[in-house]
Amino acid sequence: MLVTKRRFSTPELLLQNGSKITDVEIGYETYGTLNATGDNAIFITHYFSGTSHAAGRLSETDPEPGYWDTIIGPGKPIDTNRFFVVSSDVLCNLNAKMEHVITTGPASINPATGFPYGASFPVVSIGDFVSLQKCLCDHLGIKKLFAVAGPSMGALQAMEWSVRYPEFVDRVIAAIGCSLAADAYLIAQLDTWMAPIRLDPNFNDGEYYGRAEPIRGLTEALKLVTFNALHYRQISRQFQRRLASRDLDPATDLKNRFAVEVAIESTAQDRAKIADANSFLRLCRAVQLFSIRERKSRIRAPYLVIPAVTDLLMHPEYAEQGVKELRDAGVHVEVFEIEGDGGHLDGLNQIAQAADAIRRFLS
Amino acid sequence: MLVTKRRFSTPELLLQNGSKITDVEIGYETYGTLNATGDNAIFITHYFSGTSHAAGRLSETDPEPGYWDTIIGPGKPIDTNRFFVVSSDVLCNLNAKMEHVITTGPASINPATGFPYGASFPVVSIGDFVSLQKCLCDHLGIKKLFAVAGPSMGALQAMEWSVRYPEFVDRVIAAIGCSLAADAYLIAQLDTWMAPIRLDPNFNDGEYYGRAEPIRGLTEALKLVTFNALHYRQISRQFQRRLASRDLDPATDLKNRFAVEVAIESTAQDRAKIADANSFLRLCRAVQLFSIRERKSRIRAPYLVIPAVTDLLMHPEYAEQGVKELRDAGVHVEVFEIEGDGGHLDGLNQIAQAADAIRRFLS
Repeated sequence: MLVTKRRFSTPELLLQNGSKITDVEIGYETYGTLNATGDNAIFITHYFSGTSHAAGRLSETDPEPGYWDTIIGPGKPIDTNRFFVVSSDVLCNLNAKMEHVITTGPASINPATGFPYGASFPVVSIGDFVSLQKCLCDHLGIKKLFAVAGPSMGALQAMEWSVRYPEFVDRVIAAIGCSLAADAYLIAQLDTWMAPIRLDPNFNDGEYYGRAEPIRGLTEALKLVTFNALHYRQISRQFQRRLASRDLDPATDLKNRFAVEVAIESTAQDRAKIADANSFLRLCRAVQLFSIRERKSRIRAPYLVIPAVTDLLMHPEYAEQGVKELRDAGVHVEVFEIEGDGGHLDGLNQIAQAADAIRRFLS
Repeated sequence: MLVTKRRFSTPELLLQNGSKITDVEIGYETYGTLNATGDNAIFITHYFSGTSHAAGRLSETDPEPGYWDTIIGPGKPIDTNRFFVVSSDVLCNLNAKMEHVITTGPASINPATGFPYGASFPVVSIGDFVSLQKCLCDHLGIKKLFAVAGPSMGALQAMEWSVRYPEFVDRVIAAIGCSLAADAYLIAQLDTWMAPIRLDPNFNDGEYYGRAEPIRGLTEALKLVTFNALHYRQISRQFQRRLASRDLDPATDLKNRFAVEVAIESTAQDRAKIADANSFLRLCRAVQLFSIRERKSRIRAPYLVIPAVTDLLMHPEYAEQGVKELRDAGVHVEVFEIEGDGGHLDGLNQIAQAADAIRRFLS
């Protein structure tokens, strides 16, 4: 499936906290065809470090398909022969420097000044992501979402959809998400992610565009993201106690390291090259701010909740708590658990396990 | 129980990696009396951020007793009417600036130069901690340890004792420890702890004595230690989604924060004031280097293994794996699980749950 990145613009967006941003644009992809009644659409909402590239390949030479390609496509559970699938970049998308990512965020030019927003870019919320997605839906002629589905931070957006536009959303698929709110522990964990950026002297309170960027802080932040998405079974089996270099013994010098440390750092370095530190902070805050707990009585859509049993970031107990709260609020909830030892990442890499559950839920 | 800090010195210590340090000193406490045959001693080995202060109070006004006071004392499971209990500071004790802590580490004066060691202080190992403890035992006239017991990094020392001096150790009590080695995941986690210190410009590759110290990096490192020792149930119940200040809404400014963030940071700031960054790094490395896997056939002592069921740092599955490996090696192992929702800290705060199991094991 060859897919195309498109650009959606809107002259102004009023944020939940009262701020306004102008000339807002985000990238999006669509798969399949919208029907005449405009009600066969499924919106896919992406995870923290993800993009709108949920399925297919952007070119013949694209090395990898989108992150949920195993469940989105012709004949797949989210069947593009039947559904019109839409996936968009969030505001402040982390990968602001990545080819094909289109996002308005701190690195964007502020039309009022002609310079990047930097620290002046407002705090954003999951609700803001969703209200912009609603604008995109309206633009595309979508009258109703057959479903909204996403993993991790995408699950939070899917849940937010169900309280913000309850009449517009017929089904919610929330994979590897939290309970109905980011609770204190998750809030604290996100603070540990933000810390290395604040610690990097190049961060300069968010004013770093056009000079040395806080790349080391961002790398350490992304190391935490990478590490927290793993599980000890898989990672310990893979790396064991191997050294990064046979001749550089960690027992003799603090600078000598184990293979696993270097591997995670190298992944984080690659991720940091295409990411933006100010966006990282705003995404963390958006997740911290997430709560639909006080609005849960608005939900009309049934839920399919998909935790990963070895998830050490969005602990399955969060989902369990969410399911209980939803059912207490009278919401119909189905649950499918992903087995594995890949941790949080199983919600991406092992999502095909949920194929039948998703198919049934969408039937 | 009023206890006294004492000082043990030895002119030279040969480390496992071949380095030598001279004029080595550590603090220690003893509770109870050594018998004539010198075989009623129990050695207590402390955790990562702990000290030799395992039980009792150092003065009438000492606000809190030692960390395992609920199980050490007259008539308690580690009964000081029966046993001679010894507890010492490790080399490179984290709390180098704390009153009553005596340790040789990077902040100590190098007798060869008259200046603090700084970065030149060698990498140390759990084995080095134990061989120094053995010197202290010899000095005290201990002929044999009835048991060695410790939580977390203390468990690693207790395990190391059983392979390094198998004829000297009759019983091992390992609480909230890992398996027979620090596996890749734990190694990587310790790297995330070390990262903020390296990121702090004041760290200056470990040469910071006499100038501005890397206090922010150390604080962020201790924030990770503090956070990783908690469990989401307890922490989310305690803090929920409360703001740090009612007037400073996190939705409007990145600088505004949630109560849980500020609470953990404030704890970390207090801990950083008495800690040393170079020592922190060396303790992390010591844990990374820990492995008795290849030497397990040397073990003669039976084990009592005490995991905490909600431990998110030393996952109970590590202990389970360790128990399996020990039993495969023919070691007699008993297991007692601490219930609770306090995470890793339950191995300190809830150790009294194991009172009967410890009493039986020592009977």
